[in-house]
Amino acid sequence: MADRVSGPPLTRVGIVGLGLVGGSIALALRSVQPDIHIIGVDDAQVMEAALRRATIDEARDSAMALADVDLIVLAAPVGAILEIVEQLGRAGVSAVVTDVGSTKRRVLEAAQRSHLENFIGGHPMAGSERAGLDAASGDLFRGKTWFVVPGHEAAPDAAALVDRFVRLLGAVPVTIAPDAHDRNAAYLSHLPQLLAVWLIVTSGDAVGEGGLKYAGRGFDEMTRLAASSSAVWQSIIATNADYITEALHELVTIVPQVLGVDAARLRDVFARANQWRDRLEEERGRPR
Amino acid sequence: MADRVSGPPLTRVGIVGLGLVGGSIALALRSVQPDIHIIGVDDAQVMEAALRRATIDEARDSAMALADVDLIVLAAPVGAILEIVEQLGRAGVSAVVTDVGSTKRRVLEAAQRSHLENFIGGHPMAGSERAGLDAASGDLFRGKTWFVVPGHEAAPDAAALVDRFVRLLGAVPVTIAPDAHDRNAAYLSHLPQLLAVWLIVTSGDAVGEGGLKYAGRGFDEMTRLAASSSAVWQSIIATNADYITEALHELVTIVPQVLGVDAARLRDVFARANQWRDRLEEERGRPR
Repeated sequence: MADRVSGPPLTRVGIVGLGLVGGSIALALRSVQPDIHIIGVDDAQVMEAALRRATIDEARDSAMALADVDLIVLAAPVGAILEIVEQLGRAGVSAVVTDVGSTKRRVLEAAQRSHLENFIGGHPMAGSERAGLDAASGDLFRGKTWFVVPGHEAAPDAAALVDRFVRLLGAVPVTIAPDAHDRNAAYLSHLPQLLAVWLIVTSGDAVGEGGLKYAGRGFDEMTRLAASSSAVWQSIIATNADYITEALHELVTIVPQVLGVDAARLRDVFARANQWRDRLEEERGRPR
Repeated sequence: MADRVSGPPLTRVGIVGLGLVGGSIALALRSVQPDIHIIGVDDAQVMEAALRRATIDEARDSAMALADVDLIVLAAPVGAILEIVEQLGRAGVSAVVTDVGSTKRRVLEAAQRSHLENFIGGHPMAGSERAGLDAASGDLFRGKTWFVVPGHEAAPDAAALVDRFVRLLGAVPVTIAPDAHDRNAAYLSHLPQLLAVWLIVTSGDAVGEGGLKYAGRGFDEMTRLAASSSAVWQSIIATNADYITEALHELVTIVPQVLGVDAARLRDVFARANQWRDRLEEERGRPR
């Protein structure tokens, strides 16, 4: 696999955050390039486990201690990424830096503001019900879309290195502008997440445990995302509030004031929903 | 199985509507009581298929032609059930009548208004992605909750017969008042259905096919219900619009005006969502 992916050399990589995504990046890199030197940054306990399993070769206590690597990967929630990007930029770090944060505009703005020149944003479309290093897998990104969002002034070399990195993981790089990325994410990920949370709180409070036990498969699916942690979502929502608010307003415009009265309108919205669902199923049937 | 279910005799049953639910009722009854006489009412083409496969023993062209059975089961969408109940009541039919409609208040009101005395409402908590007689299965109701909603003046004999019918199908009868049934259904079934429809229309229109192809598993789950047909949902929504509107208003009260600003409020709603989701998963882990 490694031979088939050309590009600038990638021999020393620093990964900040060894959770599901950071851990899976380490495992995937190791499997295609066994001699790679991986330096991890996380809590002492996580690093100890990662060293013991040889997921990483070396542990350091801060992203600021990674100046000697080819690529720094920030695999943390968006809020932490923002802080680290500012620190690296102010410290004049010249290594190529990328991230896996769920929103991209604020992260790129932080890179520009702090003069972190070789920053290329990223966002893998891969996840799992499970979190943490224990859930990490070298196959997590195989065949999955990995959005690449170059900074305004990033050098072509930096973009080429991140492109190689993504391909080494088995993912498919798709370049997108930060605005388009964040707007799509608001409609396809953030609004659904909030609807799941609001639905289960509304319905749980209304029917109680006695009612909830009769919920069927539809309710189960519509609320699975409600198990997500606010620790991750707080910074996603805070950094994309404008587009999520737009999406919410768009949704509200198709909610009728009085339900059940206007049969033609209901038929119309179901017909449109059926059509979009058909398209989605067609898309999902296709290889990416 | 049949010997273990006691109650009034059930030797002749009429089933109006031989779709997924009506067809599955016929198959389940036949499997536990092979000598039962099942009379089906549906379109000519459906009845021909049902006769050919011996799903039914006899075909008739109207619910009004079922006066000689022990039990008439209305397995049609709510709108059609309302019409048939009125017809049967006005015709003075004295057979016990039950239904499988997704809402119960309007159906029971129709039975009372038309003086259909031996009416016992029902609603099985079972379904399938697939529809129609071809998707029917004698196991569809096994172990599933079947809500039983007695009319105001139904005779104890009628209730006993419907109880026996439900148990013969392998389902678990749970008696509930029409108000409680419809309110729970608004929160656990109808609001989720509408959210799925509104979400996919909003997001599909906003991001188009080019964006939709990057939707992940969460979006897929949150919009699966959007494949449902408005033909079924129109009468469900029309007959439960007050409770669905209540549920929608309750949901709107927890949607913040400005997203991403009030971190404490976001943490609180996620914590409540996480708790309800834990309860739901606990419930789903338990046998019903």
